[in-house]
Amino acid sequence: MRPSGRAANQLRNIEFIVGFNRHAEGSCLVKFGDTHVICTASLDEKVPPFLKGSGKGWVTAEYGMLPRATHTRGDREAAKGKQSGRTQEIQRLIGRALRAVTDLKAIGEKQIKIDCDVIQADGGTRTAAITGSYIALHECFRLMKDLGAIKQIPLSDQVAAISCGLYEGHAVLDLDYPEDSNAEADANFVLTAKGGMVEVQATAEKEAFTDPQFAELLSLARKGTSELFEMQRAALAAAAEKKKK
Amino acid sequence: MRPSGRAANQLRNIEFIVGFNRHAEGSCLVKFGDTHVICTASLDEKVPPFLKGSGKGWVTAEYGMLPRATHTRGDREAAKGKQSGRTQEIQRLIGRALRAVTDLKAIGEKQIKIDCDVIQADGGTRTAAITGSYIALHECFRLMKDLGAIKQIPLSDQVAAISCGLYEGHAVLDLDYPEDSNAEADANFVLTAKGGMVEVQATAEKEAFTDPQFAELLSLARKGTSELFEMQRAALAAAAEKKKK
Amino acid sequence: MRPSGRAANQLRNIEFIVGFNRHAEGSCLVKFGDTHVICTASLDEKVPPFLKGSGKGWVTAEYGMLPRATHTRGDREAAKGKQSGRTQEIQRLIGRALRAVTDLKAIGEKQIKIDCDVIQADGGTRTAAITGSYIALHECFRLMKDLGAIKQIPLSDQVAAISCGLYEGHAVLDLDYPEDSNAEADANFVLTAKGGMVEVQATAEKEAFTDPQFAELLSLARKGTSELFEMQRAALAAAAEKKKK
Amino acid sequence: MRPSGRAANQLRNIEFIVGFNRHAEGSCLVKFGDTHVICTASLDEKVPPFLKGSGKGWVTAEYGMLPRATHTRGDREAAKGKQSGRTQEIQRLIGRALRAVTDLKAIGEKQIKIDCDVIQADGGTRTAAITGSYIALHECFRLMKDLGAIKQIPLSDQVAAISCGLYEGHAVLDLDYPEDSNAEADANFVLTAKGGMVEVQATAEKEAFTDPQFAELLSLARKGTSELFEMQRAALAAAAEKKKK
Amino acid sequence: MRPSGRAANQLRNIEFIVGFNRHAEGSCLVKFGDTHVICTASLDEKVPPFLKGSGKGWVTAEYGMLPRATHTRGDREAAKGKQSGRTQEIQRLIGRALRAVTDLKAIGEKQIKIDCDVIQADGGTRTAAITGSYIALHECFRLMKDLGAIKQIPLSDQVAAISCGLYEGHAVLDLDYPEDSNAEADANFVLTAKGGMVEVQATAEKEAFTDPQFAELLSLARKGTSELFEMQRAALAAAAEKKKK
Amino acid sequence: MRPSGRAANQLRNIEFIVGFNRHAEGSCLVKFGDTHVICTASLDEKVPPFLKGSGKGWVTAEYGMLPRATHTRGDREAAKGKQSGRTQEIQRLIGRALRAVTDLKAIGEKQIKIDCDVIQADGGTRTAAITGSYIALHECFRLMKDLGAIKQIPLSDQVAAISCGLYEGHAVLDLDYPEDSNAEADANFVLTAKGGMVEVQATAEKEAFTDPQFAELLSLARKGTSELFEMQRAALAAAAEKKKK
Repeated sequence: MRPSGRAANQLRNIEFIVGFNRHAEGSCLVKFGDTHVICTASLDEKVPPFLKGSGKGWVTAEYGMLPRATHTRGDREAAKGKQSGRTQEIQRLIGRALRAVTDLKAIGEKQIKIDCDVIQADGGTRTAAITGSYIALHECFRLMKDLGAIKQIPLSDQVAAISCGLYEGHAVLDLDYPEDSNAEADANFVLTAKGGMVEVQATAEKEAFTDPQFAELLSLARKGTSELFEMQRAALAAAAEKKKK
Repeated sequence: MRPSGRAANQLRNIEFIVGFNRHAEGSCLVKFGDTHVICTASLDEKVPPFLKGSGKGWVTAEYGMLPRATHTRGDREAAKGKQSGRTQEIQRLIGRALRAVTDLKAIGEKQIKIDCDVIQADGGTRTAAITGSYIALHECFRLMKDLGAIKQIPLSDQVAAISCGLYEGHAVLDLDYPEDSNAEADANFVLTAKGGMVEVQATAEKEAFTDPQFAELLSLARKGTSELFEMQRAALAAAAEKKKK
Repeated sequence: MRPSGRAANQLRNIEFIVGFNRHAEGSCLVKFGDTHVICTASLDEKVPPFLKGSGKGWVTAEYGMLPRATHTRGDREAAKGKQSGRTQEIQRLIGRALRAVTDLKAIGEKQIKIDCDVIQADGGTRTAAITGSYIALHECFRLMKDLGAIKQIPLSDQVAAISCGLYEGHAVLDLDYPEDSNAEADANFVLTAKGGMVEVQATAEKEAFTDPQFAELLSLARKGTSELFEMQRAALAAAAEKKKK
Repeated sequence: MRPSGRAANQLRNIEFIVGFNRHAEGSCLVKFGDTHVICTASLDEKVPPFLKGSGKGWVTAEYGMLPRATHTRGDREAAKGKQSGRTQEIQRLIGRALRAVTDLKAIGEKQIKIDCDVIQADGGTRTAAITGSYIALHECFRLMKDLGAIKQIPLSDQVAAISCGLYEGHAVLDLDYPEDSNAEADANFVLTAKGGMVEVQATAEKEAFTDPQFAELLSLARKGTSELFEMQRAALAAAAEKKKK
Repeated sequence: MRPSGRAANQLRNIEFIVGFNRHAEGSCLVKFGDTHVICTASLDEKVPPFLKGSGKGWVTAEYGMLPRATHTRGDREAAKGKQSGRTQEIQRLIGRALRAVTDLKAIGEKQIKIDCDVIQADGGTRTAAITGSYIALHECFRLMKDLGAIKQIPLSDQVAAISCGLYEGHAVLDLDYPEDSNAEADANFVLTAKGGMVEVQATAEKEAFTDPQFAELLSLARKGTSELFEMQRAALAAAAEKKKK
Repeated sequence: MRPSGRAANQLRNIEFIVGFNRHAEGSCLVKFGDTHVICTASLDEKVPPFLKGSGKGWVTAEYGMLPRATHTRGDREAAKGKQSGRTQEIQRLIGRALRAVTDLKAIGEKQIKIDCDVIQADGGTRTAAITGSYIALHECFRLMKDLGAIKQIPLSDQVAAISCGLYEGHAVLDLDYPEDSNAEADANFVLTAKGGMVEVQATAEKEAFTDPQFAELLSLARKGTSELFEMQRAALAAAAEKKKK
C-alpha cells in the first residue's frame, strides 16, 4: 500500500549518531530513513538583547538544507541572500519545541544555538531535526554539567516529533517524500514523553479533513513518538557509557 | 474573569465592511474588536511560473502591519528590507486557507492576490485576516462572474479562522492582546462551514498541554466559527442587495 | 473642464479624523477626496545617534502605501526588500516639513516618529500626508504637555501642503489622479500659516514652464493652504473639546 | 562677506573637460570650483520594460560619490548594499532634467544611461552633475548622428542647473560647501536656455522664507545659468573643432 | 615538530566516499583528516546567459560551511543575507580549477553545478573541496556517458589541490588548523596529474617570503598531489567496480 | 607582437599624481597606461572590533569601478545592492599587500582606510591600485608624522604589484586589456623592494602552464617592480620637495 512497503503505523529506520561533530558542545546526526540531519548545539555566553539582565537563558535554532539534499537541486539560500518562508517557519518551530522542555532559568544568562542542517532529504526533515536536536541539546547540557556550569540537566521532559498524514485515504505514520508529496493531509506533532502536546501543525493539502481523521493522526503520532523516546534514551545511555570508558 | 469581561465562549464584536477599497476587485475591512484588517483581492492575469501552461489558477496572500498598529511602534519591514519570519508564516497560512476552498481549475490561468494589512492590532490578526479575506475573495469572484470571466463563484465552502487558548487555566475563545500575551497555550483553527478542518496550529507557550485540553479548544473553535460563517453570509448578502439598487 | 467638475481653485472634500488610532500618541486619518492617509505620531525616548548629548530632539517620518491603495496593485516594498526612490523622497520631505515648524530644543532628547500610510490613493498623497501629520504631531505634543513632559506645544507655526499643476494649459489646485497623470507641470508647495515657504518642488512633466506660470501655481497654493489651515484649526479644536468631556 | 570672497552673484570657476573618458559614447569632467564630477553617457540598445514596443527611447541617470570625495570619508554605498535616499533623489532629478530637453521619440527604442560620479565634492554636486551631463548627452548624440543612427541631435534646448541660497541673510549664487552647510535656505533651479523652468527644489533649512526672497533666488539663478549656457556652447564648439582636425 | 606529529612532507589521512549522496548525479564525501567536505555535482540543462547559443557548456561551483563546522560557531551566511568575500573567493577558485581540465565544448549547452559543503573543518577546506569535487564531477560525467548524453568523459587531466606553508620556519605539507592559524606563509596549489599548474595562491601572513622558500613549497605540493592523484584513481576504480556488480 | 607594440618586458607609461584629492590624508591618482585609479588613504580613529584594546592598528581597503570605466558599461554595484566576488577578492588583496609592509603596532589603535576607485580601466586595475595605494598610505603616514601622531613612517619596505602573462605563447609584462582578455595565463605578483614575495596569484586561463613558464613570469615581475619602486621613490621625493616650498 505504502510506496516503501511499510505498515501504516511503522516508522522508518531511525538512527542517532551521538557526538557526530568534534567541535560542538553537543551534536547528533539523525537519520529517519534517507532523511539525514546534522544537529549541533553551540553554547553562546550571550543572550539575545530582550533577555539581558533577566537572569534567564535561551534556546534558539537555525535550519538549512544543502542545495543538493533534495531530488533536484535547490538554490542556496546564502547565495540568494535570504532564507525562505519555509526555512523560517521550521527554525522557529524547532526553537519553540526545545524551549518547551527546557528550564530557561536554570541555565542562567546563556544561550544554546541549535543548528539543524539537512544533508539528505526524503520527507520529514523538520521532525527529524526536532528529534535529533533534543539529543544535541541534552549532550550540550551534559557537558555543561560535567564542567560545573550547571547542577542538573535542565530538561523537564523529552521532546520528539513525527509527521502523520492521510495518504490514499489512509492515516499513515512518518511520511517519506513520495507520500508527503501526494498526501491529502499532513500533520506534524511535537509531543513529550510524559504525554504532553507541545505543538500541532495540521494542514489539508487537497481538501478539508474531519475531526475523526485528525484524532486518528494524533493516535498514530503518540505511537510513533513513544518509540522515538525509547530510542533517544537508548542513544543517550550508550553515549554516556562510551564516554565513561 | 477575562480582562474584557467576555464569557469564555464569546467572540468579540465582529464587523465586516464589504467594498471598503474603491480600487480592488474585492475588499473588506474586518474588525474583531480592536483588531482591524484591510483585506483586498486583486486579480492578476499572470500565474506564478510553476503554473504556466497548467490551465490552473492560484490564490496567494501577503500580510503586513502598519508600524503603529501595535501598542508600541514596530519597525517598518520595508525600511528594514525584509519581512519577519512571523509575517511570512502568516501570509503562507492565509494563502493555504483560501486555496483549500477554491476550485483553482475553474478560474483558469489567473491569480488572485490577497493583501491583508493590519491597521490596528489587538490580538488575533491572522484569524481576522483569513476570515475577512474570504469575503474579499468572494467579492472578487462575484465581479469576475458579473464580467463573464467565470461561470460560477469557484468556492466549494466557506472558510473562517479563530484563535482559542488556555488563559489562567481556562479554555477561552477569540483571544485579545491582553489574553494572548499571557496565555498558557494558543491555537489557531481554520475551519469550514461544512465542518472540515483546513489547518490547526497549536502551541504550548509555557508548558505542554493535554489531549482533553486540546479537544476543548477545538470545540470552542467550532462554536466560534459557526457564528463567523453566519456573519460572513449576512455581510455578503447585504453587499449583494446594495449592489442591485 | 476638470475631470471632477471642480473649479480651478477648488480643493477636494477634506476630512480629518483626529485620534483615529487607539495606540499612537497622536494620530489622524486624513482624506483629500479619495486619497486617504493614516498619520500616526509615536514618541520614542531615543534620538538618532548624531543628536546624542545635544539636548535636542528630532522629528522624522516614514511613508508607505498599501499595495492595493492604487488603481492597479503595486508591489509590496517589504516583500521586494527595499523602499523605492519615490518613497524615500516623500518621507524625507515630510520630515523636513514638520521640523521646519517644530522647536527641537524644546522637546529635549526625544524623537517623534511619524508614520504616513496611504490606504487609498487618488493623487496628492504626499500633500495629504504632510497636512495630516501636522495634526498627529500636534496631538502627540498635546499629550506630552498633558503628561507634563513639555511645558508648551513646541510648534511655531502651522504647516500644510498642496499640489498645483498645469492641466490642459490651465493652473489648477489639488490635483487628483486623473489630472496628475496628465499634467504638463506638477508642483508641491509646503507653506505655513504665517505666510512662509518651507519647501517648493516643481517639475515640468512634458516641457518647461514659464516664470509667470509658476507664479500662478504659487498663488493657487496660497489660497488652498489658507483653507487647509482653517480646517486644521477646526479639527484640533473639536478634538480638544471632545477630550474635555 | 562670502567665505570664498566671491560676489553674491558670482559663479565659481567652471570648467568642462569634454571627452574625458575614452570608452563612453559621450563624457565630460565638470568642475564647479572644487566640486568635480565625471559624467558619462552610455548608449544601451535596450529600453526599460515599460517602453518596449512604444517606439520611444529613454534617458536615465545614476549618481554616486567616491567615499573620500567629501571632507570626512563616507561609507561606500556598494559595501552597505544600498543607495541612500539622497542618492536616489539626485539621480531621479538628473534623469528628469535631461528628459525635459530630449526628443525621446527621435532616438527610437534606445536608452542613454548617464553616470555622474563625484570624485571631489565641495557643494553643488547635483547642479554640476546636471550641467555636465547635458554635455555628455550631447556628445553621445553627436556620435550617434555621425554614425548615422539618428538624423539630428534630438535636443530641443540646453539645460543647466545652479544652486542659490540665503546665507547670512543674503541671496547668493552657486553655494560652496561652507555656505551650503550654514545656509538658511537652499534652492536648486534647473533651467533652460530659452527661459523655461524644468525643476525647482527650494528648502528652508532653518526657518521658512518669504515669497520675495524666493523671487530673488530665482533671479540669481537666471543670471548664473545664462553664463553656464554660454560656457556649455563654447565647450561643445571647441570639442567639435578639435574633432575635425 | 608539527602539532600532529606528521613529517614535513606527510599528508593527513585522506578518504574519499564516492556516491555519498543518493540524489546527486555525482558525489563524494572527502576527508583530509578532520576536514570533511560533501561535494556534489548536479546536472543542469541550462547554461548561464553568456553561453546561450554558443554550443559550449559550463562548470561552476558554490561553497559553504555549516555554522558549527568550525571550533567556534560562525554566523550562518543565509541568515546574514550574504556570502562573505572568503566564500566567494573559494567558490570562484573551485570553478576555475575544474574548468581547467574539462572540455566544455564536449558537454554541449549544459551546466554542471558543484556544491562543496564543509560539515567539519580543520584547515585546508578549499583544497579538500577541489580534490573531492574532481571525483564528483567525474562521476557525474560517468553517469552522463552511461545514459548516452556524452560519448567520452570530457576530462583532459586530473586536478587536485593541496596547501603548503611555512610553519616555524619550515616548509610543511597539508596544513591543519593549528598550523594554518600560525603559519608565516600559506600557499594553495592547484596542480594536474600531467604536471601542469592551474592555480597558485601564495600569501605572506607575517612577513614577505623569498623565492627559494616559494620553490620549496611548490616542490612539496608536487609530492602531495602525486599521492592525491593516485588516491583519486583508486577511489574511482573502486566505485566503478562496485557499480558493475 | 604585442597589440601595443611594447617589448615583452616593457611596462606601460606609469604616472603618479600625488595629492590628487584635496580632502584625503593621503592620495594618489595612478596611471598604468589607460588604466587610471584614484587611491585615497583616510585616517579613522576607530579600529575594527577584533582589535579593540589590542594596542594595534589596521589597514584595510575598498575597491570600486565606475560603471563606465570599462569598454561596455557595467552595472553599478551600489544599485545592485552588492559587491561582486571579483570586487571582494581585489579589496582583500590590496589590504593584505599593504599590511605586509606596515608596522601595525607603531600606529596604535587607529585604522587607515584605503579607497581604490577605477575611473578608467584597460587591464591591470588591481596592480595599479596596490602600487598607487602604497603612495597614498605613505602620504597619510607622512601627514600623521608631521602632526606628531607617530614618530616614524611605519613602513618596513616598499610594496608594488604587476601582472605578467602568457600571451600567444610568450611571457609578457604588464598586460593591457587586449592582452589580458586573450592570455593563456595571468599572474599577479605583489613584491617588495627588498626582494620579498608578498602575494602570488597565478591562473591558467586556457590550459595548465608549466613550472619553467611560471619562473619566467616571476622573473619579468621582478624586473617590472624594480622600475615601479624607483618611480614610487621619485614621486614621493618630488611631493616632499613641493611641500617644503
